[in-house]
Amino acid sequence: MTGQDTGAQPRPVAIDTMGGDHAPEEVVAGAVAAFREHGVRLLLVGPAPRIRAELDAHGVGGEIPVVHAEEALAMDEGALASWRKPRSTVAVACHLIKTGRASALVSAGTTAGVVATSRLRLKAQQGVMRPAIAVTLPTRPRPTVLLDSGATADVKAESLVQFAALGTAYAQVALGVERPRVGLLSIGAEPAKGNKVVRRAHELLASGQQGVEFAGNVEGDDLLTGKVDVVVTDGFTGNVALKTMEGAVRMAMAELSAAIRSSAPAKAGALLQRRRLRELRERLDSETYGGGVLLGLNGTVVIAHGASNARAVASACVLAHDLAAGRIVERIRDQIAATRTSRFGRRHAADKGDRDRGDRDTGPQPEQPPAPPDAGQ
Amino acid sequence: MTGQDTGAQPRPVAIDTMGGDHAPEEVVAGAVAAFREHGVRLLLVGPAPRIRAELDAHGVGGEIPVVHAEEALAMDEGALASWRKPRSTVAVACHLIKTGRASALVSAGTTAGVVATSRLRLKAQQGVMRPAIAVTLPTRPRPTVLLDSGATADVKAESLVQFAALGTAYAQVALGVERPRVGLLSIGAEPAKGNKVVRRAHELLASGQQGVEFAGNVEGDDLLTGKVDVVVTDGFTGNVALKTMEGAVRMAMAELSAAIRSSAPAKAGALLQRRRLRELRERLDSETYGGGVLLGLNGTVVIAHGASNARAVASACVLAHDLAAGRIVERIRDQIAATRTSRFGRRHAADKGDRDRGDRDTGPQPEQPPAPPDAGQ
Repeated sequence: MTGQDTGAQPRPVAIDTMGGDHAPEEVVAGAVAAFREHGVRLLLVGPAPRIRAELDAHGVGGEIPVVHAEEALAMDEGALASWRKPRSTVAVACHLIKTGRASALVSAGTTAGVVATSRLRLKAQQGVMRPAIAVTLPTRPRPTVLLDSGATADVKAESLVQFAALGTAYAQVALGVERPRVGLLSIGAEPAKGNKVVRRAHELLASGQQGVEFAGNVEGDDLLTGKVDVVVTDGFTGNVALKTMEGAVRMAMAELSAAIRSSAPAKAGALLQRRRLRELRERLDSETYGGGVLLGLNGTVVIAHGASNARAVASACVLAHDLAAGRIVERIRDQIAATRTSRFGRRHAADKGDRDRGDRDTGPQPEQPPAPPDAGQ
Repeated sequence: MTGQDTGAQPRPVAIDTMGGDHAPEEVVAGAVAAFREHGVRLLLVGPAPRIRAELDAHGVGGEIPVVHAEEALAMDEGALASWRKPRSTVAVACHLIKTGRASALVSAGTTAGVVATSRLRLKAQQGVMRPAIAVTLPTRPRPTVLLDSGATADVKAESLVQFAALGTAYAQVALGVERPRVGLLSIGAEPAKGNKVVRRAHELLASGQQGVEFAGNVEGDDLLTGKVDVVVTDGFTGNVALKTMEGAVRMAMAELSAAIRSSAPAKAGALLQRRRLRELRERLDSETYGGGVLLGLNGTVVIAHGASNARAVASACVLAHDLAAGRIVERIRDQIAATRTSRFGRRHAADKGDRDRGDRDTGPQPEQPPAPPDAGQ
């Protein structure tokens, strides 16, 4: 059987307790908060004695199950190394999803390692050519979904169309947007702007046959205006844009602090603004809004920022729970089936009917390394 | 002969008086300021009676020559249309460069139109595969050069290596950096990070045979830290990054203004900070630092921001003059000759010797539309 639950209450969320700069203390503290404050069902994956001691310290020793796994993916570890660790916390958490014991995975581990391990062990879901990492940008009145922020650096136009489908499903489930408007990141509004892949993707999306609400091209300065609900791009451009945004906000704040400090009267006013400025920076800073969701695999994978504190981990756990409860994998399946981008897409859409009538449990896959992911080494 | 001067005093800078949102008034005012305050020699290209009237109004009627051209490139006009206008102000200015009457061109017209027209009429300089637009980012203690910001959306790895050469020459001439450190924009520090083209470019640049000071990969959040002097990327990613940066800074400032307005005590302090905030925004805003320089053609082309006021136009004129005086085209030629990226690059480097001994005036080129530029339609 697959990792998707058929009832309203999803299976537990598996937590990689050894991922992130502040593992396992902050990770366990965040998990406990998600359990206590939001009633999220959890499975903590990590070195059992140490994790149990942490849980005891929080006074929830017997209440949250622990699944033993010794090895952690090191923060600087590439994709290849992660393939050689079948007993890593992330690998074990993926196994829990594959065997139906967990619905989703939360990790604050290194993105490349988490992406590589979960791609290998969960596999792409039916019809999905390449997975994508969705992040939400802090726009108002509601966040904007940007994908791919780094899972797939080299894409075909058909993958960008699929990313539109993934992003649509994500905005529906995570943000409650009924009919998300999808923009294609380019370098001008006109369909003929962009590189070859983007121009072709525009053509496909504008055909109106992809089951998404295509709003045309958007540019870099539209990312934070809330002009569209979902922005689609390849994982290279998306990652550059996301980090550029973070760097620009950090620079603006640093410049502002310098300006305030340099003037005595301004300083007096600044003291009063300090709290607001901090809030603003937090709202814009990746360490707060940060993390992403790897979409397109047979199971939900939430990648929290490596610097995540307990609060960020708790948010990631709640998000993972909500996505599983909202049946994101099934929503993506339906959305992908509605796309008609290529022979590949059509064949899979056609296959789907047969597969739905048959047995969806294909059992464990032989563990041989697939071709290296683009961005994962 | 070509448009490059052999003496220390370059030929005049040709100004497209009809390009930009505030043409011709602000353009002429800026040109007059460059002439009066910086002694820049100029040729104003535009509808002669109107431009002469503007010059008379500034009291410099007889001092700055005017070259008549009726047609302007419309702000929303694509590359194809611009090819059909051999008498546009930009086309005429290019002709002045080709015939040796001007050293450089300044236009605040639409980037796509200026790029397409000048590519067609000036041609790529010897050995240069694709031109690139260099912009400077407001880092401290000195600006960072980013290229390509939008001339060439689809590139080969060899073009990225050439962009490193173009950027090196530009940082040397425009910023006086003797040995500029060049970073390759990617999505991680490791050589294996990035898309296929970037990974290959890293390999070529890291070989140490390219005559540039390669400092490895940089990421989006390094763009504003001054970590390197030159950041190399394709025109698609560069344009997205540049606009993302502008959008993020604009959002940070808007958020800050909102925070300040929402609190009475903060407001009092804010009044005192207003001037500093405005300065900060200006320093970060493209309309001030903005504009770019199209590198790699047989002549210097400075593309000022479409919203340029007189001050921005004056800066662009001074920059164009300085680049011509610094013999940027020759510097690029030498830098390109030092790259060894491909059979193509080697062949051209070998050709160079012969060409230097021969006649460099190849006369006017037949005016047939070349293949459309990637980003230019």
